[in-house]
Amino acid sequence: MYSVNQINGEKYKIPTIVDDSKSIDKFINKNKGKPVIVVQGLGFVGSVMSLVCANSIHSEYSVIGIDLPNESSYWKIKSINQGVFPIISSDKKVDKFFNNSIKKGNLFATCDPYAYSKADIIIVDVNLDVQKEHNQYNNLINFDVDLSHFSKAIEIIGENCKEEVLILIETTVPPGTCEKVVYKIIKDKCNSRNLDINKIYIGHSYERVMPGPNYIDSIQNFYRVYSGINSISEEKTEEFLKTIISTKKYPLTKLNGTNSTEIAKVLENSYRAMNIAFIVEWSRFSEKANINLYEVINAIRMRPTHKNIMLPGIGVGGYCLTKDPLMASWAFKNMFDSDIGLTQSEMGVIINDKMPVDAFEFLRENIKMEFKDKNVLLLGVSYLSNVGDTRYTPVETFYNCLKLEGANIFLNDPFLKYWPEKKVNIENNLDLSLKNNYDIIVFSTGHDLYRSNTLMINKIKKMDKLLIFDSIGVLNEDEIGILSKKHKVKILGRGDI
Amino acid sequence: MYSVNQINGEKYKIPTIVDDSKSIDKFINKNKGKPVIVVQGLGFVGSVMSLVCANSIHSEYSVIGIDLPNESSYWKIKSINQGVFPIISSDKKVDKFFNNSIKKGNLFATCDPYAYSKADIIIVDVNLDVQKEHNQYNNLINFDVDLSHFSKAIEIIGENCKEEVLILIETTVPPGTCEKVVYKIIKDKCNSRNLDINKIYIGHSYERVMPGPNYIDSIQNFYRVYSGINSISEEKTEEFLKTIISTKKYPLTKLNGTNSTEIAKVLENSYRAMNIAFIVEWSRFSEKANINLYEVINAIRMRPTHKNIMLPGIGVGGYCLTKDPLMASWAFKNMFDSDIGLTQSEMGVIINDKMPVDAFEFLRENIKMEFKDKNVLLLGVSYLSNVGDTRYTPVETFYNCLKLEGANIFLNDPFLKYWPEKKVNIENNLDLSLKNNYDIIVFSTGHDLYRSNTLMINKIKKMDKLLIFDSIGVLNEDEIGILSKKHKVKILGRGDI
Repeated sequence: MYSVNQINGEKYKIPTIVDDSKSIDKFINKNKGKPVIVVQGLGFVGSVMSLVCANSIHSEYSVIGIDLPNESSYWKIKSINQGVFPIISSDKKVDKFFNNSIKKGNLFATCDPYAYSKADIIIVDVNLDVQKEHNQYNNLINFDVDLSHFSKAIEIIGENCKEEVLILIETTVPPGTCEKVVYKIIKDKCNSRNLDINKIYIGHSYERVMPGPNYIDSIQNFYRVYSGINSISEEKTEEFLKTIISTKKYPLTKLNGTNSTEIAKVLENSYRAMNIAFIVEWSRFSEKANINLYEVINAIRMRPTHKNIMLPGIGVGGYCLTKDPLMASWAFKNMFDSDIGLTQSEMGVIINDKMPVDAFEFLRENIKMEFKDKNVLLLGVSYLSNVGDTRYTPVETFYNCLKLEGANIFLNDPFLKYWPEKKVNIENNLDLSLKNNYDIIVFSTGHDLYRSNTLMINKIKKMDKLLIFDSIGVLNEDEIGILSKKHKVKILGRGDI
Repeated sequence: MYSVNQINGEKYKIPTIVDDSKSIDKFINKNKGKPVIVVQGLGFVGSVMSLVCANSIHSEYSVIGIDLPNESSYWKIKSINQGVFPIISSDKKVDKFFNNSIKKGNLFATCDPYAYSKADIIIVDVNLDVQKEHNQYNNLINFDVDLSHFSKAIEIIGENCKEEVLILIETTVPPGTCEKVVYKIIKDKCNSRNLDINKIYIGHSYERVMPGPNYIDSIQNFYRVYSGINSISEEKTEEFLKTIISTKKYPLTKLNGTNSTEIAKVLENSYRAMNIAFIVEWSRFSEKANINLYEVINAIRMRPTHKNIMLPGIGVGGYCLTKDPLMASWAFKNMFDSDIGLTQSEMGVIINDKMPVDAFEFLRENIKMEFKDKNVLLLGVSYLSNVGDTRYTPVETFYNCLKLEGANIFLNDPFLKYWPEKKVNIENNLDLSLKNNYDIIVFSTGHDLYRSNTLMINKIKKMDKLLIFDSIGVLNEDEIGILSKKHKVKILGRGDI
């Protein structure tokens, strides 16, 4: 079994037996006097969290990142130890922080659970997924939460950790998990290992990480909410967070108990997901009533109470908004024995999952021809502007719809060269993508590169007559005017063109 | 038939034949040179709109308020002409503006349609209701929009108005109404009266009036959106609005066509209604998970993107949020032939209408005794803090639930002496209300008088042991602590007490 480095293509054989204990001891020895932080999980949160800890504002830590020796994770460990950070980011601070930690020699990666035994602080950043089942129209028909992977991660900690350790859960979990799952597992393991559970501190403080140009700042310079399983755990958590976050500018908020912070996380994401879903039906209404919904929303946003109203779009992606409302609803029923779930929050996800299909149907109605063998260019694959992140991107559903109808699809994204979920290459050079003619060009991600880009507009203008579909409001009025002279232009949420 | 003045109790015989033409001519003559504004409808919007016009910032107008000679409206006409403004407001500007217009002699009220023939500007502020049908549990089971009353109001204008008049619709209407109803009626009437429809200007600019301490400012000093049936109507509308609104500080926003502004109004209210509804299920969740939802929401509100997230409460009242989402959905289907409505927006109203029943059920679960013959004091009847307005107040549904179970209900509201919908008196003196003992005290409106009121807390503390139910988060932590020592205290959205 091999694991391939997604940054430089290097191939690593995955070891069957892992023994990094000597390297870990050596690393810790070299960083004598610095408390040891182990970050569990080297994904989009954990890897950057490791950097923030290794570059702590008010303390010096030796930081060990840990992940599993499997195909999707092993390469990250090798990559970090070889001096290649496993994420390409538009945030310059990421490289700066990584280079700095190499220089200082206070960052190490491993898959050996031995690391937990040396930790003063363990930060849990492993994934906890919702299993969603859709029908062919992307209607969500079922979902469930499987805690076994997460529980296993906590068990490994409980089997290895020492006393006087702070276990800080950052993973988004179903509310109730810290009390009913984490604490229970750690207590059981303590009992069998003759450790004192009262000397193990369990805190919860969810991250608000945003990959993109402010990746580091979304941890280091942003508000945090925290809680602990008991008051000493609260204190230990606060003490630690103060060393890595600019709490003078972004004061911490303590909530009463882990249920509270767990609910806060899924509540804030459910709120956002529902607010996005809300505007979907109004897009249809606007198309029917022949108005420009963007113009209407901008007028409404003048009201301070309505500043956060969302614009129409192709859909919702990423790891959080697509699952957190479901996770909350699942917990309400399964952790707290409620007969009812969070209907309205679930509905937010259902509507959002359907959005790319709606966008596709809008296109179909307006193209009034078969998609078969049509050349379609998608401008943008990422789920978010100015970020190279394809996790649960709505563009995938839209792509699948086109594919099913037999279109020839061409992809462009300035932040991506490869689409792991679809296993296809992506052209990251816009000039190259615009060298050909297409039947349809779709703006599918709101990257800045596609906004007010005169060169791009001129190139599209010169192409053979085609259909341009702006699914996310990238084009401004002038550009629409210029392009409409020759091409057919259709905008989601607008019937007035 | 009589109409009773709700301010001073005076009783007026409603005339069967109305002829105010001489008084109108005299009034206009006295105000020579001042363009004539007729405000149609003297409700919560029209009456105060009349004041704002009579006290125009950049112009001088003679203003005539007009309403129907019926039981609920005739007294307002008499009252205005007798120098008694028909609304009691906590906004001191209301009295100031009214006294000023009396002094200037530029405000008159009538029910004679003759007034329309003299108008340079007609502002339509009549009601347009949604007919809602609920079952016994306050579940919304059906709704409809009857345009006949509104159409009749427009017909009277069309039968009387002169050329060169601006008809400005401020009433919240189903999107499509200005084009498909108002314009059509006016055009038909023009045809039969040999008037030139192109010399009649139709604009739409919805109000964002908030009764309460900033009543006048919610018109004069706030953002406005406007549109016209054609470009000359747009211009005339803009020209007029600039004379009554501080547009330097609150610039106007022009939208493209009346459908756009009509949708903007119901969209912004639907957004708000849905955001209130959203938090209902999370209140139940918080009670089950034993957390304090207020604390959680305050933590979430630190995020600039989440500032507008709502707190739990007893329900939604007032004239707008309780109907506008339904009106929008109705228009989508009936004005624009959509097969689907605005499901999520409708759901907002359904959930909100159910809120007071949820609050009652929460109380029932926590009281664990029969309501029959229990003495219950409701602190607050109005639907909104610091306002005396009972229209569609959620307290009514809550009151009905208590009544049905045989409770003795006592009412307090500093802003109300009488509850017209229930035809019962209200004690507006808090000291008097707190002289008795009760089995239950419910905080049902968030008036400032009930917040941080040490005297009130001391009086409640001294009462015999009782249950205190805060349905809107009026009590602070200290007060909860003090009251909990003796009484049982329950807060909606909290399980932690």
